[in-house]
Amino acid sequence: MKNLLKKVVVVTVAITVLILGGCGDKQKPISATTATPAQTYHWKMVTSWPKNFPGLGMAPEKFAKHVNEMSGGRLTIQVYGAGELVPGFEVFDAVSQGTVQMGHSGAYYWKGKIPASPLFGAIPFGMTADELNAWLYYGGGMELYREMYKPFGIIPMAGGNTGAQFGGWFKKEINSIDDLKGLKMRIPGLAGDVLKKAGAIPVNLTGGEIFSSLQSGAIDATEWVGPYNDLAFGFYQAADYYYTSVWHEPSAGLEFLINEKAFNSLPKDLQQIITVAARAVNEDTLDEYNARNNSALKTLVEKHHVKLRQFPPEVLAQLKKYTNEVMSEQAAKDAGFAKVWKSYSEFLANIRSYNDITLKEYYKNR
Amino acid sequence: MKNLLKKVVVVTVAITVLILGGCGDKQKPISATTATPAQTYHWKMVTSWPKNFPGLGMAPEKFAKHVNEMSGGRLTIQVYGAGELVPGFEVFDAVSQGTVQMGHSGAYYWKGKIPASPLFGAIPFGMTADELNAWLYYGGGMELYREMYKPFGIIPMAGGNTGAQFGGWFKKEINSIDDLKGLKMRIPGLAGDVLKKAGAIPVNLTGGEIFSSLQSGAIDATEWVGPYNDLAFGFYQAADYYYTSVWHEPSAGLEFLINEKAFNSLPKDLQQIITVAARAVNEDTLDEYNARNNSALKTLVEKHHVKLRQFPPEVLAQLKKYTNEVMSEQAAKDAGFAKVWKSYSEFLANIRSYNDITLKEYYKNR
Repeated sequence: MKNLLKKVVVVTVAITVLILGGCGDKQKPISATTATPAQTYHWKMVTSWPKNFPGLGMAPEKFAKHVNEMSGGRLTIQVYGAGELVPGFEVFDAVSQGTVQMGHSGAYYWKGKIPASPLFGAIPFGMTADELNAWLYYGGGMELYREMYKPFGIIPMAGGNTGAQFGGWFKKEINSIDDLKGLKMRIPGLAGDVLKKAGAIPVNLTGGEIFSSLQSGAIDATEWVGPYNDLAFGFYQAADYYYTSVWHEPSAGLEFLINEKAFNSLPKDLQQIITVAARAVNEDTLDEYNARNNSALKTLVEKHHVKLRQFPPEVLAQLKKYTNEVMSEQAAKDAGFAKVWKSYSEFLANIRSYNDITLKEYYKNR
Repeated sequence: MKNLLKKVVVVTVAITVLILGGCGDKQKPISATTATPAQTYHWKMVTSWPKNFPGLGMAPEKFAKHVNEMSGGRLTIQVYGAGELVPGFEVFDAVSQGTVQMGHSGAYYWKGKIPASPLFGAIPFGMTADELNAWLYYGGGMELYREMYKPFGIIPMAGGNTGAQFGGWFKKEINSIDDLKGLKMRIPGLAGDVLKKAGAIPVNLTGGEIFSSLQSGAIDATEWVGPYNDLAFGFYQAADYYYTSVWHEPSAGLEFLINEKAFNSLPKDLQQIITVAARAVNEDTLDEYNARNNSALKTLVEKHHVKLRQFPPEVLAQLKKYTNEVMSEQAAKDAGFAKVWKSYSEFLANIRSYNDITLKEYYKNR
């Protein structure tokens, strides 16, 4: 009987240890919602930007920090700069194939795969940052965004906005539309197609490739973002004229790309943490650009003696005409583009007429 | 011996139940980070808006939903409309005294306690929504905001923005600055002081009190927000003229008020969940207004035959002159106002000069 008692005690201890083990210690925390051992997730996020690059490159870092802190370390995300794991233009494929769980990039880079993608990022003479966000979240844009990326197993989320972008850096002045003829310019998205109509030669390069191309003369001009980012890249050393005119990217929406299977494998609270963190970073990034651009512009002008220029009104009018042609052609060529463009252009027409009597008037009167 | 065995088994079961109890079931979840029984928190949030009112009243609801979902139910927040627990203008005191843990309101309602508070919400001829967010998060605004509220034991967080507000509803047309003389108008914040200089009589009323006051003739005019909210209140039934001019609230920042002790009593992950949720709602609310205002305006004009008007340029110029006087007087009277105003006005001067060559030009050219 003593033996039986011993056995019972041993079994009791074993059960207790088993239960305590299941209860979780500091290495194996328990999920708040399920009370089963909490799984921790370690994700990778590849990006199209140099690591920690102001604005663009800080958005994924801020996101990872938010998610880590809000999840109490249950979901950590390691951020990689362009080229560290995959090249900047292979972010989409890496996420689609599940090589990594997340990416951070700009939608218009994928127009070869998804013709409608620029409409979620930036198009010439399109929406401002606030207009784009309003369309995405309250105008049906996000539903279309998800629909377009679904065949690739990717869930897209808005991931920041640069605000209105400058016309770009030119080695010579642009005084008429003819000055664009034969010009080799780094410019992505549909703006490249617009410039092609003006006789220019659009080139697609990731951020890290632009400066040397401009300096070597492989390209004659480039747009990048605006003063805050352009100062960081030192373009003032390679081109004299900085065109302030906003036309090709009145705002550029950045995006988080999330592998659908990876997202669906997360518990509900972590899914929500990702969704809300993306939303917070979406505004934060715009705030950063809005706050930093002006002082960067001052530095460019006062310290680096950059010559500011505006495109003549007739050049802008001609680019707008070409833009309308490009949009019609894209819509005729691709049903997806046509569907998204209908939603986008109707929303824009409405919000534009509203902003014409509010913000536009206010900028004039204040 | 059988009895002893029985006792051992009973004790074993008791231990097991105890351990399982400590391990947490659906009623008592375990914290993910500490593996001790997670404390759940049930907070109350009072607001200055009617419950579930479009825009203003949805911001706290969205916030509570985010927090509940991201925390896996560890922090729930019950939202109360104005007057349900405390009147709309007593939100600040209720949070300060710890009667409730949170509030949602507009900063300018507290100018009697904190003269600088309107600078975090809305001032005449001040910042747009994007400019305000840039100042708060990247221009030193948030640090000053926290400093001003600290003596009251309150942590403020930006909690949405209505975007540019309309001039308001008037029973008679305003054709000259003299038409404002003797006019009883509901208008909060420093805009009331500006109107006083024009000979008007500013009145402070919460949302729920305005319609009946306008209809009864207790007031002659009112501003509220813009088409989306103004349509919901039915002001078109009480006044003929709707002035679209943006001047007194080029944007109105809303705010979350958090009792400092309550916030500090939370674990780090829940603190971060609150902070990021507030940030997400800050943009979301602006998006909602931007998306909904235009169709509401169409309804007001096409269905309710509202007469749209703009203030004559000389009226706006005079109001701007009075605004400059009010700002100087406030700064001379209160050191806190002077400190915040210095930061605000310098930031505004810079971002304004930037937006003048970017967004302002774009609105003209597109």
